[in-house]
Amino acid sequence: MIRHLLAARHLESSEITGILNAAAEYKERVVNGENVEHGNRRSVGLLFFENSTRTRVSFEQAANYLGYRVLNFSGAGSSMSKGETLKDTILTLRYERLECLVMRHKASGAPALAANYFNGPVINAGDGQHEHPTQALGDALTILERKGDIQGLRVAIVGDVEHSRVARSNAWLLSKLGAEIRFVGPRTLLPSHTGKLPGTVYYDLASGIADAEVVMCLRLQRERMSDGRISSIGEYTRMYQINRSTLRYAHPEAIVLHPGPLNRGIEVDDAVADSEASCINEQVTNGVFVRMAALDWVFRGVKEGQLA
Amino acid sequence: MIRHLLAARHLESSEITGILNAAAEYKERVVNGENVEHGNRRSVGLLFFENSTRTRVSFEQAANYLGYRVLNFSGAGSSMSKGETLKDTILTLRYERLECLVMRHKASGAPALAANYFNGPVINAGDGQHEHPTQALGDALTILERKGDIQGLRVAIVGDVEHSRVARSNAWLLSKLGAEIRFVGPRTLLPSHTGKLPGTVYYDLASGIADAEVVMCLRLQRERMSDGRISSIGEYTRMYQINRSTLRYAHPEAIVLHPGPLNRGIEVDDAVADSEASCINEQVTNGVFVRMAALDWVFRGVKEGQLA
Amino acid sequence: MIRHLLAARHLESSEITGILNAAAEYKERVVNGENVEHGNRRSVGLLFFENSTRTRVSFEQAANYLGYRVLNFSGAGSSMSKGETLKDTILTLRYERLECLVMRHKASGAPALAANYFNGPVINAGDGQHEHPTQALGDALTILERKGDIQGLRVAIVGDVEHSRVARSNAWLLSKLGAEIRFVGPRTLLPSHTGKLPGTVYYDLASGIADAEVVMCLRLQRERMSDGRISSIGEYTRMYQINRSTLRYAHPEAIVLHPGPLNRGIEVDDAVADSEASCINEQVTNGVFVRMAALDWVFRGVKEGQLA
Repeated sequence: MIRHLLAARHLESSEITGILNAAAEYKERVVNGENVEHGNRRSVGLLFFENSTRTRVSFEQAANYLGYRVLNFSGAGSSMSKGETLKDTILTLRYERLECLVMRHKASGAPALAANYFNGPVINAGDGQHEHPTQALGDALTILERKGDIQGLRVAIVGDVEHSRVARSNAWLLSKLGAEIRFVGPRTLLPSHTGKLPGTVYYDLASGIADAEVVMCLRLQRERMSDGRISSIGEYTRMYQINRSTLRYAHPEAIVLHPGPLNRGIEVDDAVADSEASCINEQVTNGVFVRMAALDWVFRGVKEGQLA
Repeated sequence: MIRHLLAARHLESSEITGILNAAAEYKERVVNGENVEHGNRRSVGLLFFENSTRTRVSFEQAANYLGYRVLNFSGAGSSMSKGETLKDTILTLRYERLECLVMRHKASGAPALAANYFNGPVINAGDGQHEHPTQALGDALTILERKGDIQGLRVAIVGDVEHSRVARSNAWLLSKLGAEIRFVGPRTLLPSHTGKLPGTVYYDLASGIADAEVVMCLRLQRERMSDGRISSIGEYTRMYQINRSTLRYAHPEAIVLHPGPLNRGIEVDDAVADSEASCINEQVTNGVFVRMAALDWVFRGVKEGQLA
Repeated sequence: MIRHLLAARHLESSEITGILNAAAEYKERVVNGENVEHGNRRSVGLLFFENSTRTRVSFEQAANYLGYRVLNFSGAGSSMSKGETLKDTILTLRYERLECLVMRHKASGAPALAANYFNGPVINAGDGQHEHPTQALGDALTILERKGDIQGLRVAIVGDVEHSRVARSNAWLLSKLGAEIRFVGPRTLLPSHTGKLPGTVYYDLASGIADAEVVMCLRLQRERMSDGRISSIGEYTRMYQINRSTLRYAHPEAIVLHPGPLNRGIEVDDAVADSEASCINEQVTNGVFVRMAALDWVFRGVKEGQLA
């Protein structure tokens, strides 16, 4: 059976640990200048139907380090702009013998649909408001490096949880590794059915991040203003911004994560974003290594000669 | 003299057979997991001035298998958006020492113009309403695999022949291999000067596909409605759709081809598109292998040290 | 200290000579079909925030010849379209472990800003109205090949000097190598503070190119009409076009350069652009080789294990 990486929710904790260990090993070898290319030059399609710099480049770097061939294509300039169904696009790529698809799409569930029609592994690189599992893997590796263990940590995810695939993937993944998850934000930006997600809801920043060892800021999409979810950026900032002053509520050695791209001065201020507590740059670096491990992991589900 | 692949019309039947044999051999070797990279890492420019997924990725896969380097560029984001002439763009790419150009352009004849100024082979990847020769090569390989021989087959090309480069290339190529070509569709979508094309015209689907061993559906461009060529999609569908019911007029072992992207439910219905008779997926796969053979074939026209 | 290539103005003449010698050597080896790939497969990011064919492809070819890995990204489809700052985009690429950035941007100084945040070399591939140093290097190699030496040559740069990064980079670079620089054009298209640039101003074409061994035409941007800098294309053409007739004022063996893309019939006519005097195609070819040498040069500033 082909292995896909569609959602952190579906991973066993032993699988997560396996991927994180492999990523840590890749990191050590690559940083030491070792060549880690595989003999096999597998072809990996990067299908980014939504804008991306960090995630696309991160996957491309991961594939480069492994010696894989990358084929890029976005929605614009593709047959889908001629009205082709996603199913038929995926079938085309399958029969053109691509061996793995990495896919970002604005529709939640699009990568899962693709996995039905493709003959090799599909990796979800962010789908709508659903999941972004490799982001959560990179975040977990970052927390592990800083804190040594994830078990028992208090992790506060602050901001627009309702619309965040990063929040969902982290909540599932970190809770499987034993963290306590808290969702912090205004009522209008927290999921209405939080019962489905593993975590507790806080509407007040001070109590939400109290004693938290990990504070994860989410990007505030500007469209939350126009859809009436928040009355003003200023009000949101006053109530939920992570800065030196509000960070005092958290654990004294709290670390701060942000999936990027940052709205500096909105969900986080410059002083914290560029402080020792901030792990933003490590998150980016670890993103490359967990994606190498993720590519390995999905390809281990493929039997010799099975693809295409 | 440099060899270009601009039009099926200009190929000798022995050249066609040579390319198809080479493609079949590549297919066997690649499917068996053999490395078929050439020592020579030639650089191939993919100039897609029109949208494409399948053809661009297909050429990129072909180049990858051969170990060639691919440079992608589209019209958007290029100097042509600054008003540079096609001639000067091609001269630039020539003097930047690209060794082959694969070109799609909305203007019929643009690749032939490019071939005047480039110093290496040019492959037409679809130009306006003129030709798309590698599509026809892939289709021919597919028919050969299914039917064993092309000589004497009745091939019905159904739909908007007037605007289809796929129809033109297939008509020329398959007739050179001994097939009988029929063009089937409404008067407004068939070429007014069919005398120039090797085939017979039928306005009635039942008689057009009668006893045909090969039924090739063409994509109905939606703009045919707005330009008044057809009165409604529904009417077209009732009269010319290939489905289980209409396919009964064809030979009992008829196969169905479609160049993609499909308008499911218009020129072909789901039942036929996904049936045993459908060769759509094989067409896609064979597209990669004929493009490998085509790249080989054009490069055999290049003397050592001649390029750039 | 990391070496950047941001401006011809900052290069020592010995550095320029070193890069040109290395480029000439690469040219000889590549034209002879030698493989010049480095063992080290460094990853080079091509950040083109403005349209480009020739420069992007030229850098991509240069990287290919050296065996480097290229990652392409434009402004469109990136996180910057989500409002991310340039600083944060550059930090992301740094922590994703890209080893060199080649950057084109509409803002003068953007590559210098990027160099502050990136941990490896940054090469300016054209920034606003500031500089385009690798263009000037390719032009210098071209002049050297044709004239044997640059010392003492009269170089007339004709046209819209005010808005041309190519003019600025060439003025600095060629004057460092001993050329006499003249800026020729209407008052409205010459810099108001020419005192800052090494050259003399001429408003009259005949006297400006008198006895010049090198005539460099600049592209006339069509927006110079709408901003009132010139009253009509026709008038500009009558007064400043380089054609067989006006070229008689120059040295009898004058050569003509143009950075491209050409407005044929405006700043230069077809007869001259396609004549023996024209070096346009050599400029393009040499662009690839100076970029190979430039990549080498910046990477020699990097200590082992320093990047990322």
